Amino acid sequence: MNALQEKILKEGRVLPGGVLKVDGFLNHRIDVAFLDEMGRELARLYSGEKIDKILTIEASGIGIACIAARHFGNCPVVFAKKSKTSNISDDFYCAQAHSFTHNKVSDIIVSREYLSAGERVLIIDDFLANGSALDALISLCRDAHAEVVGCGIAIEKVFQGGGDRIRERGVRVESLAMVSEMSDTSISFKD
Amino acid sequence: MNALQEKILKEGRVLPGGVLKVDGFLNHRIDVAFLDEMGRELARLYSGEKIDKILTIEASGIGIACIAARHFGNCPVVFAKKSKTSNISDDFYCAQAHSFTHNKVSDIIVSREYLSAGERVLIIDDFLANGSALDALISLCRDAHAEVVGCGIAIEKVFQGGGDRIRERGVRVESLAMVSEMSDTSISFKD
Repeated sequence: MNALQEKILKEGRVLPGGVLKVDGFLNHRIDVAFLDEMGRELARLYSGEKIDKILTIEASGIGIACIAARHFGNCPVVFAKKSKTSNISDDFYCAQAHSFTHNKVSDIIVSREYLSAGERVLIIDDFLANGSALDALISLCRDAHAEVVGCGIAIEKVFQGGGDRIRERGVRVESLAMVSEMSDTSISFKD
Repeated sequence: MNALQEKILKEGRVLPGGVLKVDGFLNHRIDVAFLDEMGRELARLYSGEKIDKILTIEASGIGIACIAARHFGNCPVVFAKKSKTSNISDDFYCAQAHSFTHNKVSDIIVSREYLSAGERVLIIDDFLANGSALDALISLCRDAHAEVVGCGIAIEKVFQGGGDRIRERGVRVESLAMVSEMSDTSISFKD
């Protein structure tokens, strides 16, 4: 998606430790109109596929998932939680994920009642780096015997290898921008 | 909003400790079409007010804030974070909030660059109970010299007093459903 590449070049900043800071439009301040265009593009990529549910993970995935859902016939969005709060039941699927930006491993959970056998699920997230969050979300779907139609990612950092590893397992992964290299002074994309 | 009251009566469950479980449509599984109706109603309530930005807090506020933003001319959404991640700058506003469902006090932060003096801000959240999160969000706005136009809440638990306390300070608070009493067997609303 050229518009996203341009936005990353214009507004993104590379921070130490391989962090691409795009919190001006994607994961702190949300540019709702732009995310709507990204949602439209994800729907185009997955047109022809029946999608029953969008699955994402708190917190940064929720915005793009909810905005994209509009382009998937307002299908429901379920977000995996990173901690058990008092308002969720004790009956949940659980998987472990390592967060790149938080630098910690945490359990992620989804109530069993919100992920069902046979459902066709599209997984949406803002970033794909080492693929740990995506692995965990795919694992939750498999535990529920739901079918992962594919993944829709805003920005994939190709050089961290998660996307290729997951594709090699036969899971469809579509990323709207694929960053192949980045440094303090430049960001390159794989088309 | 009658449709929300009906949905709470139909799908909500009262859990021990004063928890109203509505995670089937609001804060775990998100009913995107229904939240769109809620966003439309918030826009009707605040029609005539210029809104530059919607401010919310991760994670449960993000869905309703992003979906509602469409009805506020696709204005940007900023969500306050509950922990400092590696992709946000060191220059932020900070306030303390006690989470009812997590039962802990945490710092919430917003990067200074995403909240500006003179901006007219609508604060949106899924729940209003003791008002601690709302207090913290209002405090962030005041630190930034932004103007709080008001608050738009999905469900206010009136009996916990936060809403009335904040209204008494002169802040406009609009809640789409106001739960006045709840028990294992019944939920009552204030109209």
